[in-house]
Amino acid sequence: MVDQVKLLGVSGSSYSRRVEWALKVKGVKYEFIEEDLQNKSSLLLESNHVLKKIPVLIHNGKPICESIVIVEYIDETFEGPSILPKDPYDRAIARFWAKFLDGKCLEAVGKALWCKGEEQEKNIQEEAYEMLKIVDNELKDKKFFSGDKIGFVDVAANYIPFWVEIVEEATGNVLITSEKFPNLCAWIDEYLKCSEVQENLPDRDMMLSFFKAKALAK
Amino acid sequence: MVDQVKLLGVSGSSYSRRVEWALKVKGVKYEFIEEDLQNKSSLLLESNHVLKKIPVLIHNGKPICESIVIVEYIDETFEGPSILPKDPYDRAIARFWAKFLDGKCLEAVGKALWCKGEEQEKNIQEEAYEMLKIVDNELKDKKFFSGDKIGFVDVAANYIPFWVEIVEEATGNVLITSEKFPNLCAWIDEYLKCSEVQENLPDRDMMLSFFKAKALAK
Repeated sequence: MVDQVKLLGVSGSSYSRRVEWALKVKGVKYEFIEEDLQNKSSLLLESNHVLKKIPVLIHNGKPICESIVIVEYIDETFEGPSILPKDPYDRAIARFWAKFLDGKCLEAVGKALWCKGEEQEKNIQEEAYEMLKIVDNELKDKKFFSGDKIGFVDVAANYIPFWVEIVEEATGNVLITSEKFPNLCAWIDEYLKCSEVQENLPDRDMMLSFFKAKALAK
Repeated sequence: MVDQVKLLGVSGSSYSRRVEWALKVKGVKYEFIEEDLQNKSSLLLESNHVLKKIPVLIHNGKPICESIVIVEYIDETFEGPSILPKDPYDRAIARFWAKFLDGKCLEAVGKALWCKGEEQEKNIQEEAYEMLKIVDNELKDKKFFSGDKIGFVDVAANYIPFWVEIVEEATGNVLITSEKFPNLCAWIDEYLKCSEVQENLPDRDMMLSFFKAKALAK
């Protein structure tokens, strides 16, 4: 049987791009279905009736939700280069960092990027700095999180190299500088140099317009 | 080499108990080290320098953090009955539900249990009801989340059968009734009937006193 793989996503979403990256690493052919989040398709609402969110991977008619869960599923299901490390201990460490980056860190960074920068919001910025410092320390003397090539943890951090920088420009809230986070900035450079990443990014101008409009509406 | 397994935890914590349950399922001998969260040990602070939280499993000197990550590690590392399903699709579904139960659902339920019950907090209660309804629907016609025996998802939901009920008594904020959540209540009964669960619960009176004192201090 030929695998039928559909991805319900939004091309500007870092969550969708994680899944596309994993599918490309494995060489899986898929159909990308662009969702309009203001008017979600019935396929999306049925496939992810719990969260009603993208991305959803539909593999031979069966839906899988949550980008990090989908990436693990792709790794376990399709042939090709490994995405998670093979050793159980290394895998646990990768899962720990993916959870941190996709959870606490993303939440703190998102809040700080979109805050109004007023005095009472200083603690929001401090929290984001604290999270980013943890990531910066982890990246000391490392090219990527788990070795010499991009893997599971790098992809869980995929919002940092491209999306954060654009939102910084749109809102004027600059969080990441090479003075504050030298290791993180070195990682961002390495990450963005990879052809597999460059080919899997949305259009920068389109994203900047989108986030500028969002910043104005706040 | 004989495995050396230490668990840094708190015996009253549902997170610690998840890990203890997994170790017992696999028949792993371990040393439990009770942590004082007001005065954390240097072993805990070194082993989990990112989150500084329990539980931490130390296996042959190597630390693993985050209860859900630890349970997966135990499943992949030690012989014995499987904790996660074997099939990749079923495993993805289990991971999705574990993430939901350990994340959004736990957060919403925690907030509602500890809120003061004032009018402006009604939306907090509504959100918890919404999360619990999702869980209730998922448990329709099921004994446990993934079949006839307790597994990964049940253990991610382990705070519901014991801890929630005690906090309800301590704070007077009752969330779970069989009228509202019949499937969830049937699952709670099945879960608490299991000897492997009963043997792995903290002392109820001690927990009630602890939560009553916490409610008074609020």
